[in-house]
Amino acid sequence: MKPKILSGALTLVLLAGSFTSPVFADSVEDAIKYRQAVFTAFRWHFGAMGAMVRGKVDYDAQQFSHHANQLSALTRMPLEGFIDGSDMGDTAAKPELWENLDDINSRFTQLMADADNLAAAAGGSIDEVRPLFSAVAKNCKGCHDKYKED
Amino acid sequence: MKPKILSGALTLVLLAGSFTSPVFADSVEDAIKYRQAVFTAFRWHFGAMGAMVRGKVDYDAQQFSHHANQLSALTRMPLEGFIDGSDMGDTAAKPELWENLDDINSRFTQLMADADNLAAAAGGSIDEVRPLFSAVAKNCKGCHDKYKED
Repeated sequence: MKPKILSGALTLVLLAGSFTSPVFADSVEDAIKYRQAVFTAFRWHFGAMGAMVRGKVDYDAQQFSHHANQLSALTRMPLEGFIDGSDMGDTAAKPELWENLDDINSRFTQLMADADNLAAAAGGSIDEVRPLFSAVAKNCKGCHDKYKED
Repeated sequence: MKPKILSGALTLVLLAGSFTSPVFADSVEDAIKYRQAVFTAFRWHFGAMGAMVRGKVDYDAQQFSHHANQLSALTRMPLEGFIDGSDMGDTAAKPELWENLDDINSRFTQLMADADNLAAAAGGSIDEVRPLFSAVAKNCKGCHDKYKED
């Protein structure tokens, strides 16, 4: 039986709670490690697709689709790591992030939608997937430029 | 549009290739970081469910279901990080792992199935989900005891 990925809307409802209080017995450090780990996993799948988009490795539609689907699943994950109190510690998140949680929520909603579009198109030609890959990439850069220390 | 998670069978076909050669321009270090990151994300969701199972926090069926689904998605991910050459470096994987890749494959197939069973049952009572959570946990312990340095 295949698991269902939560819809973006439901995920955000759940995550809204995560912003206000650490619901579980997770430490703030665990939350920071968690979200950073998810972003590390992002990079693996993103990088594999990027190598194909840039022509560094041959385009393989099945492999591209695999990575697009995994990336889409991962976009549902990091937001809940931004729990209350996790602005301190070993984090590259700028202070501005914590003053703009509505914007972070909106940006993740857009990222999920763009990642889903990419996953839906994956399997097509490289010319079909390239602009959708770029759309996903714009989300990463936009958020990092505004909210992540270099 | 919801992304589809690859079926276990298809994932394993894809991953079989990953065992024999680094398909993409990813370094061995990136592969090790990737699989370790996925396991870190495992622990977040697993820990959140474990806290409920052990009664450390109140059982919330919706939150439990969320974590079960995320864990299920994550079980599809780490295997591809065990690429050829990634037995060396900053890894806790024992040498025995690399001599038993068929067993690792089988163990991940079982983990995926057990995680899917948990995700399918999540939403039920704590007594319904507890044994399925334990079944997932047995996979972690079994693999760590055999293939992971303490």
